[in-house]
Amino acid sequence: MSINSFGHLFRVTTWGESHGPAIGATVDGCPPGVPVTEKVLQHWLDKRKPGQNKYTTQRREADAVRILSGTFEGVTTGTPVQLMIENTDQRSKDYSDIRDKFRPGHADITYFRKYGIRDYRGGGRSSARETASRVAAGGLAREAIKAIVPDLQITGYMVQMGPHTIDRDRFDWDQIERNPFWVPDANAAIKWADYLDSLRKSGSSVGAVIEVTARNVPAGLGAPVYGKLDTDLAAAMMSINAVKGVEIGEGMSAAMLTGELNADEIRMGPGGPEFSSNHAGGVLGGISTGQDVVVRFAVKPTSSILTPRKTITRTGEETEIITKGRHDPCVGIRAVPVGEAMMACVLLDHLLLHRGQVGGNRGVIG
Amino acid sequence: MSINSFGHLFRVTTWGESHGPAIGATVDGCPPGVPVTEKVLQHWLDKRKPGQNKYTTQRREADAVRILSGTFEGVTTGTPVQLMIENTDQRSKDYSDIRDKFRPGHADITYFRKYGIRDYRGGGRSSARETASRVAAGGLAREAIKAIVPDLQITGYMVQMGPHTIDRDRFDWDQIERNPFWVPDANAAIKWADYLDSLRKSGSSVGAVIEVTARNVPAGLGAPVYGKLDTDLAAAMMSINAVKGVEIGEGMSAAMLTGELNADEIRMGPGGPEFSSNHAGGVLGGISTGQDVVVRFAVKPTSSILTPRKTITRTGEETEIITKGRHDPCVGIRAVPVGEAMMACVLLDHLLLHRGQVGGNRGVIG
Amino acid sequence: MSINSFGHLFRVTTWGESHGPAIGATVDGCPPGVPVTEKVLQHWLDKRKPGQNKYTTQRREADAVRILSGTFEGVTTGTPVQLMIENTDQRSKDYSDIRDKFRPGHADITYFRKYGIRDYRGGGRSSARETASRVAAGGLAREAIKAIVPDLQITGYMVQMGPHTIDRDRFDWDQIERNPFWVPDANAAIKWADYLDSLRKSGSSVGAVIEVTARNVPAGLGAPVYGKLDTDLAAAMMSINAVKGVEIGEGMSAAMLTGELNADEIRMGPGGPEFSSNHAGGVLGGISTGQDVVVRFAVKPTSSILTPRKTITRTGEETEIITKGRHDPCVGIRAVPVGEAMMACVLLDHLLLHRGQVGGNRGVIG
Amino acid sequence: MSINSFGHLFRVTTWGESHGPAIGATVDGCPPGVPVTEKVLQHWLDKRKPGQNKYTTQRREADAVRILSGTFEGVTTGTPVQLMIENTDQRSKDYSDIRDKFRPGHADITYFRKYGIRDYRGGGRSSARETASRVAAGGLAREAIKAIVPDLQITGYMVQMGPHTIDRDRFDWDQIERNPFWVPDANAAIKWADYLDSLRKSGSSVGAVIEVTARNVPAGLGAPVYGKLDTDLAAAMMSINAVKGVEIGEGMSAAMLTGELNADEIRMGPGGPEFSSNHAGGVLGGISTGQDVVVRFAVKPTSSILTPRKTITRTGEETEIITKGRHDPCVGIRAVPVGEAMMACVLLDHLLLHRGQVGGNRGVIG
Repeated sequence: MSINSFGHLFRVTTWGESHGPAIGATVDGCPPGVPVTEKVLQHWLDKRKPGQNKYTTQRREADAVRILSGTFEGVTTGTPVQLMIENTDQRSKDYSDIRDKFRPGHADITYFRKYGIRDYRGGGRSSARETASRVAAGGLAREAIKAIVPDLQITGYMVQMGPHTIDRDRFDWDQIERNPFWVPDANAAIKWADYLDSLRKSGSSVGAVIEVTARNVPAGLGAPVYGKLDTDLAAAMMSINAVKGVEIGEGMSAAMLTGELNADEIRMGPGGPEFSSNHAGGVLGGISTGQDVVVRFAVKPTSSILTPRKTITRTGEETEIITKGRHDPCVGIRAVPVGEAMMACVLLDHLLLHRGQVGGNRGVIG
Repeated sequence: MSINSFGHLFRVTTWGESHGPAIGATVDGCPPGVPVTEKVLQHWLDKRKPGQNKYTTQRREADAVRILSGTFEGVTTGTPVQLMIENTDQRSKDYSDIRDKFRPGHADITYFRKYGIRDYRGGGRSSARETASRVAAGGLAREAIKAIVPDLQITGYMVQMGPHTIDRDRFDWDQIERNPFWVPDANAAIKWADYLDSLRKSGSSVGAVIEVTARNVPAGLGAPVYGKLDTDLAAAMMSINAVKGVEIGEGMSAAMLTGELNADEIRMGPGGPEFSSNHAGGVLGGISTGQDVVVRFAVKPTSSILTPRKTITRTGEETEIITKGRHDPCVGIRAVPVGEAMMACVLLDHLLLHRGQVGGNRGVIG
Repeated sequence: MSINSFGHLFRVTTWGESHGPAIGATVDGCPPGVPVTEKVLQHWLDKRKPGQNKYTTQRREADAVRILSGTFEGVTTGTPVQLMIENTDQRSKDYSDIRDKFRPGHADITYFRKYGIRDYRGGGRSSARETASRVAAGGLAREAIKAIVPDLQITGYMVQMGPHTIDRDRFDWDQIERNPFWVPDANAAIKWADYLDSLRKSGSSVGAVIEVTARNVPAGLGAPVYGKLDTDLAAAMMSINAVKGVEIGEGMSAAMLTGELNADEIRMGPGGPEFSSNHAGGVLGGISTGQDVVVRFAVKPTSSILTPRKTITRTGEETEIITKGRHDPCVGIRAVPVGEAMMACVLLDHLLLHRGQVGGNRGVIG
Repeated sequence: MSINSFGHLFRVTTWGESHGPAIGATVDGCPPGVPVTEKVLQHWLDKRKPGQNKYTTQRREADAVRILSGTFEGVTTGTPVQLMIENTDQRSKDYSDIRDKFRPGHADITYFRKYGIRDYRGGGRSSARETASRVAAGGLAREAIKAIVPDLQITGYMVQMGPHTIDRDRFDWDQIERNPFWVPDANAAIKWADYLDSLRKSGSSVGAVIEVTARNVPAGLGAPVYGKLDTDLAAAMMSINAVKGVEIGEGMSAAMLTGELNADEIRMGPGGPEFSSNHAGGVLGGISTGQDVVVRFAVKPTSSILTPRKTITRTGEETEIITKGRHDPCVGIRAVPVGEAMMACVLLDHLLLHRGQVGGNRGVIG
């Protein structure tokens, strides 16, 4: 069986294949009264859209989103919002050579073994194209969040590409929008451009680490112990194509800390409790502390490369394959708006769950 | 709201607080016809049980599990299985000093802000004691798996404690059961013992990385795109107390690989497709490949330490706290059987989901 | 919050408003390998389609269904199937007079009080137009059932219209398709035509009872105790617009029986256990017996009538309303294919749940 | 697979068999801050408890409920509430004669065919004993409702026993608690006593209709279109053992009404919209109107009777069976508090869902 929905109350079901007529997201549980237009959603889709510079796939999709239901006179009504994006540049002929071969590192072989049938055109359902639906849903989530917590801000950016990491001392929020890598370090942006250019020319690819930070998140979000905020974020990020690791706050490095270093001390600030540090990444016991919520995820290099790789055919014969076509040397770049979208969906979902909290927030501190 | 259940078809709900009368797991969706006894489940609980050596908390719990429903004449009937563990060593007096103070790094402050009320005795619901319920449910999952895929094997072990990692060249499955750290490297076990001993004496603590490997997992498990096998594993592991990062296969290091290195090549073996390497950790596109499924997670150091830390009281006054009591210098040790239990629950769940797959597995390769 | 999905494994989410651009059903969990085309689904939509005779609303919709995802080369792939029906005859001008008035018996006032906003055009989301999406999904469910249990047959028909009931002694399956009321009694069809004609002319309306029978349903379907087969059927039918009562087998009349009359005796037949009668309606303890599954539901008269009714405006002033427009004197007629569709969805869902049953069916009788 | 949970946010999982060590309810999603004690819950269990008069089974159970988790100092904490009832009077020897025979009208044969194994002692999981767990959970739901809508009142009562109905003109709320049948008509109570006495003596049984009314239900509850308030009530009631039909408001009789009679007219009252009648049973479009919510359900006669009935054995041989033991001539009596409990659970669930409604209730009328 397949499970194509996520979320508890803000529930997103994505549908569609890379080379079918359309893809989209069926969003149930969006609160009523949220102003939303196709134009507002389009902004986020454009951010993810391929073919914008030489570092991303040259597939050209208009990626124009249509709202087919759930709004009336520009405002959500509380009924399901259907967001549809028609596929315009399908070029299915490009994929005829992979019809009977399984591309290493791709989901070709696993879909085939699971379902006994697969839409081989561009990866079908397993294509990263599916993430456009997430970005559309995430755009809607952002508008709903805005109506509930106006100053909550979600920002994604790259912190590592291949062996190259950013210099945290140079971290500058304003740089993120000024380079094609969404990197918050101007120096890194320059170096990475050269690095990626040479990778692209050699037909190779490389992985990346994306960080998404949410600022001004209210304390109290999270549904322990199996709908913890960090649990849901881990699931959300790991569900993105090519992601192999997820970290909250200190992440894997938490293993190297002692208890003294790790425990963020608490003090009283003007608006309530504050913390001396944020090793926790804004989550304790699965519930938000009021600090920045910080999540990172690693994206593996795209498996579509020009170097021949050994594989087998559908009938079990050994062969080789080169994946031509239009591909990204670093899919991590386009994963940035996708990570933001997932953060938006998870946070809205928990805002709605917490709104339903009867009797909560009674014990206000201070 | 809280969400205390996980799983799609094999659905586990844990309940209970550290110092209440009992804790347990309500397991719905266990297949009928699985032989299971309290003794079999007790084996796994004993593995996790505290107080077994000087490296784990000296709290002494019998941790005796009782099966209250769902079996008949030693076999599951398909109805809910209630697994109850009574709390015997509660010593709630130990915790009176934290009644009005929030321990840094603990969930005290977030539970209070969320619910406006908290059971402060030993962390209440946020205590790692909750994981005993998971281990009981995981024991049941193991028995059910055995009935479906007899040779499937799940093994957890530590690969890092603080700054010390294992030597992969010395990896020996047989060492795991021979030392108190479940470490597959005899040399590491000796060094870690000294290291942890000094930490314990100084009242400090340290983090760890646990790896759980499942061998002989059938290809085809996973429910893309939001119930992917790796998505569910990420959620399962991140939901464990103190976990801050989860990796599948290459994990965060995937960011540093090129496409050539990362894509596991495919060849034909005697029993079907085989792979030249396992950077994927046994999962492609969210579906198992038939290789070993490999997941790692980082556990932060316990926040209960003897060094005073700054904090605030329930009424917002600044103060300091020392967390005395019975605690683990490295909670990672006891997280090993918990990680195994979560792997067992997730794999059984996906075995059941895949069993429901009509028409699947038709396209057998070769 | 709204909940626009139903089903456990075969999960249908309907979306869309009466006068928006389109309506549809997002179907997740359809098994792979099921042959399905738009033409096959269109057959069922045409059965429900309005404007076919003088007894149903004169709204003219092409009701052409498009499959936007989830199939490849005419066969389902196991990924979500998106079924879209564009709204072509919207005439939203007809509804301007109800913009500020609540029609008695309609959901106008409750949607407004719940959401604080409503799409007043034709009832918006609460319009019976939503049931076209159900019929499309039900058509897909029928094809999947056919692949699993080829001889399973689902048939809906009217057994009561206003005060007029069928004569069970004249019950004839073959009559059902031969009259505009789907009534299995030729005499009744004639009488009902006259009766409904006069109702229509007077601008009045009347209720009805629909019965749906599923034949050749395997024994063992149902997920006690809260996903019982009859529980899910009750929910499915009660969720249809205007339904006020649901009965399984003997239904409300079971109250009048003694234990001797009610308990269907068991004997051995050539193919397994058989029953001397079917008061149970094919379900015992929430699980199918192998007998015909029989469900009935009552549909209230459409509330859109030409007689003025007292009501209030959005601002609370008392007024009167006449609901003109294109409406059905007996919406029960068009509820017949909807009831069939819900039966198909529920049965497929339970076939899939039961397929996942490991160890089940071991105790074959006889 | 089995599904032993119901509810969206207030989620109840019942567990346990008639003759196992205990039964109970795991309740997740109960709001924090609700005062609740075992004594309060016991009140409702005592109402349902068997053996209280000659009209109900002579099985004697203490039915003492214990709260094992989720409360602290007499108040819920927002964590799962475990309610356990130990089975004290099991007498499993009584049931040895039905070990190999299937009782007609009971779930013996269907459980066996589904699971291939069954706990034959007293019906195991399919015993009406499971409803004690529901009553415990319903008691908790009542307390939580009280904290949210203090004047909401839920009252169940019998309106029909066999052929005997109440006289609606004699309806008196105060009579309900004064007779063993919970009947709101003093005359009926007298007649029914004689009728049931003779049934009991002859070893026969009879069905009943129970009505449950909730007064002072806020407008706006219900989650269209598949979590409608009436949909969830239909599922809740149909899931009770032996229920064969469910009606909302006018119920099956709605089929006989014309549109003029059926549509409840609307006027302005002092506190908001009012209705001239309540054919709707308090629900329009699946959302509460603010009127009384009225649901009725029919319970079939218990199938355990002293007249021999034809049946088969586990190995398929034809035989006869008499069900001795301790049974109710009219199980409908004990279904009254169960119906109330289900109403309480459904209403609380929808109160919580609606609390999460952001932006709702903006369009206040008048």
